[in-house]
Amino acid sequence: MAYTETDTLAINTIRVLAADATAHANSGHPGAPMGMAPVAHVLFNKIMKFNPKNPKWLNRDRFVLSNGHACVLQYALLHLYGYALSIDDLKAFRSVDSITPGHPEAHDTPGIEVTTGPLGQGISNAVGLAMAQAHTGAVFNKPGFDLVDNYTYAFLGDGCLMEGISSEACSLAGHLQLGNLIAVWDDNHITIDGDTNQAFTEDVVKRYESYGWQVLTVGDGENDLEGIEAALKAAQEVKDKPTLIKLTTIIGYGSKLQGTHSVHGSPLKADDIKQLKTKFGFNPEESFAVPQQVYDLCHQASARGAAAEEEWNQLFAKYSEQYKAEAADLVRRQTGDLPEGWEKSLPVYTPADAAVASRKLSEIVLQKIYEAIPELIGGSADLTGSNLTRWKGAIDFQPPATGLGDYSGRYIRYGVREHGMGAIMNGLAAYGTLLPYGGTFLNFVSYAAGAVRLSALSQVRTIWVATHDSIGLGEDGPTHQPIETLAHFRALPNFMVWRPADGNETSAAYYVALTSKHTSSLLALSRQNLPQLEGSTIEKATKGGYVLHEVEGADITLVSTGSEVCIAIDAVKVLAEKNIKARVVSIPCFEVFDAQSREYRSSVLPDGIPSLSIEVMSTMGWERYTHEQFGLNRFGASGAYKDVYKKFEFTPEGIAKRAVLTVDFWKDVPNIRSPINRAFQQLI
Amino acid sequence: MAYTETDTLAINTIRVLAADATAHANSGHPGAPMGMAPVAHVLFNKIMKFNPKNPKWLNRDRFVLSNGHACVLQYALLHLYGYALSIDDLKAFRSVDSITPGHPEAHDTPGIEVTTGPLGQGISNAVGLAMAQAHTGAVFNKPGFDLVDNYTYAFLGDGCLMEGISSEACSLAGHLQLGNLIAVWDDNHITIDGDTNQAFTEDVVKRYESYGWQVLTVGDGENDLEGIEAALKAAQEVKDKPTLIKLTTIIGYGSKLQGTHSVHGSPLKADDIKQLKTKFGFNPEESFAVPQQVYDLCHQASARGAAAEEEWNQLFAKYSEQYKAEAADLVRRQTGDLPEGWEKSLPVYTPADAAVASRKLSEIVLQKIYEAIPELIGGSADLTGSNLTRWKGAIDFQPPATGLGDYSGRYIRYGVREHGMGAIMNGLAAYGTLLPYGGTFLNFVSYAAGAVRLSALSQVRTIWVATHDSIGLGEDGPTHQPIETLAHFRALPNFMVWRPADGNETSAAYYVALTSKHTSSLLALSRQNLPQLEGSTIEKATKGGYVLHEVEGADITLVSTGSEVCIAIDAVKVLAEKNIKARVVSIPCFEVFDAQSREYRSSVLPDGIPSLSIEVMSTMGWERYTHEQFGLNRFGASGAYKDVYKKFEFTPEGIAKRAVLTVDFWKDVPNIRSPINRAFQQLI
Repeated sequence: MAYTETDTLAINTIRVLAADATAHANSGHPGAPMGMAPVAHVLFNKIMKFNPKNPKWLNRDRFVLSNGHACVLQYALLHLYGYALSIDDLKAFRSVDSITPGHPEAHDTPGIEVTTGPLGQGISNAVGLAMAQAHTGAVFNKPGFDLVDNYTYAFLGDGCLMEGISSEACSLAGHLQLGNLIAVWDDNHITIDGDTNQAFTEDVVKRYESYGWQVLTVGDGENDLEGIEAALKAAQEVKDKPTLIKLTTIIGYGSKLQGTHSVHGSPLKADDIKQLKTKFGFNPEESFAVPQQVYDLCHQASARGAAAEEEWNQLFAKYSEQYKAEAADLVRRQTGDLPEGWEKSLPVYTPADAAVASRKLSEIVLQKIYEAIPELIGGSADLTGSNLTRWKGAIDFQPPATGLGDYSGRYIRYGVREHGMGAIMNGLAAYGTLLPYGGTFLNFVSYAAGAVRLSALSQVRTIWVATHDSIGLGEDGPTHQPIETLAHFRALPNFMVWRPADGNETSAAYYVALTSKHTSSLLALSRQNLPQLEGSTIEKATKGGYVLHEVEGADITLVSTGSEVCIAIDAVKVLAEKNIKARVVSIPCFEVFDAQSREYRSSVLPDGIPSLSIEVMSTMGWERYTHEQFGLNRFGASGAYKDVYKKFEFTPEGIAKRAVLTVDFWKDVPNIRSPINRAFQQLI
Repeated sequence: MAYTETDTLAINTIRVLAADATAHANSGHPGAPMGMAPVAHVLFNKIMKFNPKNPKWLNRDRFVLSNGHACVLQYALLHLYGYALSIDDLKAFRSVDSITPGHPEAHDTPGIEVTTGPLGQGISNAVGLAMAQAHTGAVFNKPGFDLVDNYTYAFLGDGCLMEGISSEACSLAGHLQLGNLIAVWDDNHITIDGDTNQAFTEDVVKRYESYGWQVLTVGDGENDLEGIEAALKAAQEVKDKPTLIKLTTIIGYGSKLQGTHSVHGSPLKADDIKQLKTKFGFNPEESFAVPQQVYDLCHQASARGAAAEEEWNQLFAKYSEQYKAEAADLVRRQTGDLPEGWEKSLPVYTPADAAVASRKLSEIVLQKIYEAIPELIGGSADLTGSNLTRWKGAIDFQPPATGLGDYSGRYIRYGVREHGMGAIMNGLAAYGTLLPYGGTFLNFVSYAAGAVRLSALSQVRTIWVATHDSIGLGEDGPTHQPIETLAHFRALPNFMVWRPADGNETSAAYYVALTSKHTSSLLALSRQNLPQLEGSTIEKATKGGYVLHEVEGADITLVSTGSEVCIAIDAVKVLAEKNIKARVVSIPCFEVFDAQSREYRSSVLPDGIPSLSIEVMSTMGWERYTHEQFGLNRFGASGAYKDVYKKFEFTPEGIAKRAVLTVDFWKDVPNIRSPINRAFQQLI
């Protein structure tokens, strides 16, 4: 395509808007937006397929700004191309309650696909988006109907490349031969500390080639628009490799301080902005000015996108006639609703059923529901046989050339890459047609904490199948036994931590996790067998907490989760021998229990009697529900699980001993208040 | 060196011990030990310098088993070479209270340098150990006195290579030109899920070359002992590059199932062990049998190591005469004690001093103490100017060839590699002569959660300088604002989370962190300015919690940390206008406060009046100290920090409002109990 002065003007408009918005906010990162304005213009104006009037059009190309601190670039683009982001929104950059926060947030701003800023996440989300396209295309495309064939484009900086998460995701992307993934590396030699030669001297080109990527180079990222376009098109042509374009740019291009780290994270000074505007032919006295011909040029591209969507809609209409069920399924998936009646597949248990480890109960759920929920796509970080995440006969998601599976496969071999897996799941979920789950040991979900937090913040639906959930894993020992992990993730807003005690609670956990469209979940599951409990039902457990065992005139409430609930039940008998009447409450999920009415919660944790929590890890957080806590505020031990439980006294007798102390300690207190009574409501 | 049948026997002894120990434990990983027995034998018997009678000899070569699940290999070696690990300890493998837990733990077992098992950590620790050697050598070696010149050897598997943390650390190791680091990759093509071709098809050789490593190849890791030795020696020769040796092995070598993932994580069957023993010339009816000639061969190597230490001791004696101060310093460092009188350098403040951000207060501490504590070595994950972690005039730790510093430098440019930084700090600390700290935003310590947990478990002393500690960072917004982070790390055993409120508390935090030899710390520090408080002293703050503002006949205790303490103080005035008398308590560190006497804690948080905590993040954990909690159980917002605080009502008025509700809610309760009263002590 021939580039004109209007293209140059459009590029400089982005630069000037970036300078204006950061100066107006007196905060933010002008450098990368100014350096990357040319590639952003070429990509949005000449290459990408999107319709700003319908940012959720399924077959749009996805754009991810992995260097999310450069978001004023993305906001400027969204404005110029006609997304619902006004010039006033740009002026409100980085101010409270704006749709233009300091880093891009997917749930707030139209046109933002994923929430980025924490480095390395975006490019890993992009791998997930590309996998989602490959899978969705493989499932729904038919001869003559290339319904789903979009690309995923990502910008990333040196910081993203240094983060281990991007190594994990990009190595997997190479293995998966994702030709639909095109990343542009902003090779500007600058990070916050200064020149990249201080800490980052690896040969990135060679590294990405080692992953199996195509690597292309554009030497003059500020002026060579044709070269940029040619590289992007060459990237599109290679179908069995992701592409990294090494684009050499000058950070803060146009500023008097261009090429230095001074322009990375601080607004330009007023006189610098003036010279910038003058140099680029703008009125130095005007701010947030967009020449009409720039709007026109951008809107032309958007119009082409709208036309492309219209064409696609016609294609889809024909597809719907020929492939009625598939079309309906594709439409349904995008609503986030599950197929009607799927929940009938959930297993139900009675106390007569055998004791089963909850990781195995999870496997049974997956085995029962996978057919009913075709958007379910799972995997494990190389612990398939331990996490039990694979249903029988599952096809692996693999490039067909490997002979190990194909792209329609619904089981992902993530390798030992927990953080990458977490970010990829966020990308899979963000695509709009899939519901991802992933397995690892609970202890190693911590490796993925950065991605888990973004699941919660960006309100996507993902599910962690976190097995080996306590000292109950036994012999592997303290290096693998979670102590702090449940407290960590329970403290994360908009995130559900489930620790089911038996089969019905496991079904309940899956039910709530699968039907919560805007919340991610973690299921903490045992390695050891657990009996099916008298009194548990799916319905009760979906309340997050409930009375498992009631007794008239109780002296104490025992409150527990997961593998300790059955021990608490046994402690009731020990206590009965001591003439203490105990009731038992199971709270498989704090977050869900907290959302119940005060009346209900009071019925579960009533006033008048003391309560004791039992959980084999940190007691932190349990004071919210119980008067006293029995837990493990130290590291565990390596040994057979029963020996380890015994060592730390998590036995009926150990519980009973502490229950006696609890009853005794509280016996002189009149009108004992349940801890759920609070003076005021928290801000949530 | 010529290899004899005794070498072969020694190798097979390791294999048989691995099979016996895992079978006896009915748990564990025989595969990698059996496959890596040859390289382990060559390394320990012909190459490494160590003295089992003094596992802490400073100039010993360090050995790290990054694939820690293979620890029965390491335990077998420790036994054969005469460390204090008996055959009974081997028989106690993976049983409660043994010194042979399921994964190697440094604090328990003589000869274990670092705690490994969580994949990718060990190789990253090894980078830290190698950096520590380079630094210690650069500081202490003198002409004619190559006092510190040991190598660091690491074994690692495919899992370690897939984890992002190893990418971070190994990229940095290449940049740092660590010729003293030699890693052996167990290239056995097997992971838990099966063949590595399912998920891990990158070109590892090329990747490590891209990092600037030398990569050598040994094609027959089971038989080519000369080739293994030649590769290890070639690795020693290259002084400006770390080396990766790609060693092709057969997992479970000797088993009927060798070369399959069946031998990865499960003991061999009885008949398989029998055929293994028969094949290798052992009595199939005997277990844990070690031929005397194998002991002899191993003990010869140990004797050479003892002689090497003796020679070194003589060298050190001469060194001590010529370099008295240096020698004394080196001896002192290894005790973990700081130089006498160092604490006089800690800054002290009065309320007349200016308001300063606690990140800046931290910088002032570092600036004041760096001369007094020469073992202090710091850095940042590319946020130096934000974390304020670099004292003026610091020299960077860099290879001299870069012209950017030298190995005696005490400031490390980690790049954007938080997880790698955490594991490297663990390695630096484990070396024995250094006290490492590292900076990043509090929110991104989460990226390093896997390494932080191992700091705590392995009882090393590291310090996280975690700035931008709350919504108070303002404009960067929710992607960067911690909510769950303090709860997460407060729930971690043997780990101190400090959130100082002013200058004296910052000095106190450093004092305790620096003098706690076996505990790591995190200092959560503000971006915004904080006033110097009336009533704070270093001494009081070292108790972890104390009364900042007392008043007779108080109606309520306000309890807070960090940047909210000064707002709580202002709330006292607002409450006074409402005729409510409030006292104020500051609890900068839960872990340290919990360790105080019950009497002291009762004086700080007394019975009789209600209490309200104020902290701008998750309330989780505060119920342990206060009756009511004001916090933020949701994500934050992007905007100027004062606007953000106002939005969530963290203002004197917002606090006063909730204090009034608290007083009102508790007014009818007689004899209010302080939450620190408990029915029984936790297991700690």
